[in-house]
Amino acid sequence: MLATGVFDLLHLGHLRFLEESKKKGGPRSRLVVVIARDNTVFRRKGKGPVIPEEQRRELVAALRVVDRAILGREEIDLLGILKEVKPDIVCVGYDQDEIRAAVTRVIKREGLPIRVIRIRRFGPTGFNSSSKLKNRVAKALLVS
Amino acid sequence: MLATGVFDLLHLGHLRFLEESKKKGGPRSRLVVVIARDNTVFRRKGKGPVIPEEQRRELVAALRVVDRAILGREEIDLLGILKEVKPDIVCVGYDQDEIRAAVTRVIKREGLPIRVIRIRRFGPTGFNSSSKLKNRVAKALLVS
Repeated sequence: MLATGVFDLLHLGHLRFLEESKKKGGPRSRLVVVIARDNTVFRRKGKGPVIPEEQRRELVAALRVVDRAILGREEIDLLGILKEVKPDIVCVGYDQDEIRAAVTRVIKREGLPIRVIRIRRFGPTGFNSSSKLKNRVAKALLVS
Repeated sequence: MLATGVFDLLHLGHLRFLEESKKKGGPRSRLVVVIARDNTVFRRKGKGPVIPEEQRRELVAALRVVDRAILGREEIDLLGILKEVKPDIVCVGYDQDEIRAAVTRVIKREGLPIRVIRIRRFGPTGFNSSSKLKNRVAKALLVS
């Protein structure tokens, strides 16, 4: 099982996504999580995460549901990651359509025996997204 | 082993505190974490946490190092918690001097066979405190 993401401020939506990803592989599956590098996030979104990549990786690795958490490649290298981790399933989140398209393209092109599964959105609204969470934090600080 | 805290935005400082707390009890110890209720935080700090109590509890419970995470009592009731969990050690964080004093007082008064251990500060500066983290988040939003 492979799942990927930024996991900037770890929240319940992340946890549900990872738990659900693990379930898709059955009880004995191993869940490997690829953590997006700071540079990759910066290139894609125009700004970097609040928490540095190694700290994001360590916190995800500390979750019981996660068997291994590794940093992504500096240069996005999907095929490299897929060949290294050799997952049978790649799980993508409800908000990861770009990643889903890219993974599906590589799998088809290379004829890899990998399924792509989309995990639906979880958790109470307002707490299932890092950006909404950041807005809540900023508001709370402004009020105080 | 018992440790307690708010754990509002889970970060590496929290994880290190919990890992270190678990270590103090030896390899076979069980770590029970008491999560401060929203109301308790509000009464003590004049404002509540960003993340609601049940979500904070679930995320802490999902850490491999944590055996059980429970919500505190609505009315602060240290003696009740200590009698329920029956820890041999209570670990307090570097920034939990008030809790440390209160726990020590109850233990002495009741003659309970419990040690109190202070865990030192961990993690890179700026990422080992929820309030510093919140400031980083707010700054990052203002810049963008």
